Amino acid sequence: MPEVSGGRRRPGRRPGRRPGAADTRGEILAAARRVFAEKGFDKATIRGIAREAGVDPALVHHYFDSKEGMFVAAMRLPMDPSSVLPLILSGPREEVGERLVRFILTMTADPAAREPLLGLVRTAMVNEQAVGMVREFFTTAVLGRVAEALDVPPLRMEAAFAQLFGVVMTRYILRFEPMASADVEEIVALLGPTMQRYLAG
Amino acid sequence: MPEVSGGRRRPGRRPGRRPGAADTRGEILAAARRVFAEKGFDKATIRGIAREAGVDPALVHHYFDSKEGMFVAAMRLPMDPSSVLPLILSGPREEVGERLVRFILTMTADPAAREPLLGLVRTAMVNEQAVGMVREFFTTAVLGRVAEALDVPPLRMEAAFAQLFGVVMTRYILRFEPMASADVEEIVALLGPTMQRYLAG
Repeated sequence: MPEVSGGRRRPGRRPGRRPGAADTRGEILAAARRVFAEKGFDKATIRGIAREAGVDPALVHHYFDSKEGMFVAAMRLPMDPSSVLPLILSGPREEVGERLVRFILTMTADPAAREPLLGLVRTAMVNEQAVGMVREFFTTAVLGRVAEALDVPPLRMEAAFAQLFGVVMTRYILRFEPMASADVEEIVALLGPTMQRYLAG
Repeated sequence: MPEVSGGRRRPGRRPGRRPGAADTRGEILAAARRVFAEKGFDKATIRGIAREAGVDPALVHHYFDSKEGMFVAAMRLPMDPSSVLPLILSGPREEVGERLVRFILTMTADPAAREPLLGLVRTAMVNEQAVGMVREFFTTAVLGRVAEALDVPPLRMEAAFAQLFGVVMTRYILRFEPMASADVEEIVALLGPTMQRYLAG
């Protein structure tokens, strides 16, 4: 499970940190985990994370393009939303539902990609601080972006998310059969039209 | 959260227990929680639970009609699957999807009904023993029965379950907006056709 709270606090600037320092990136990520847990995703800032890590904001930018990218790295998530969007948007619009299902199922088929994501969900299930952070990240950085790109109303976007979330939970955490061992393409055929209906607005 | 493991063990028969004894029902339920956690739902038996509670199986039958009813009472779940099925099956078959969505959303709108269910899910998310028990109860006693009554293939039944499970999680645990505060009938209109498509086979 990703660390979402606690950990050693090291407030204050520590001078002489350079991009080449051995654990600078790791220390920035540890600071990011503490700040995201405390402030949530929306209120966390690169400046605040730099302050928590005791480094210059420019150094944070040296390692991470965006707050989204930093969250993804801090939680060890398998993908940055900004790299997913082009994948989903490329190709015929009438197949976007099918592409989205196939993408999520292919990505989560890899335990190295799946486990940090499931860890984050498990933490959110039992920890109020984590749930706020997860909610803000998903609604702001993931669903909000896809909804905007596809011009889908938020409730439809969340119904689509709920379908995929439920399938991933049923397949990998609850491990219902036959869902747990069904072929990806069988699930794509079953869920594709559902997603298409939600995302077609 | 419901108790799914641990607790004081009291093996062996204790004579002189009568239906009228003050805490007999409670002691049977505590024994049931231990047995379900240890054996899972499928392998647990009324006889085994009676043995664990130190009472005669006939006394267990005096309090509980079935193993399902016992699980429901032991986990403080809001409903017995056998009482839900007639509700879903009554009325036009082409509206069964809509009825199912409305039933789940109306039931979970009541915190007293929702919380034990969410507690069981939370426990299952982080506890391997609990996940086995939850999986067996849902697949055997809930989904298997609905699928049989409606003649729906298991994978379609699980896709329908995943949609509803995802919506309940998104609405009440992750609390995404607008899903968390959307009107029940708005969600019924959105999800009804999805469920109908899955359940129409």
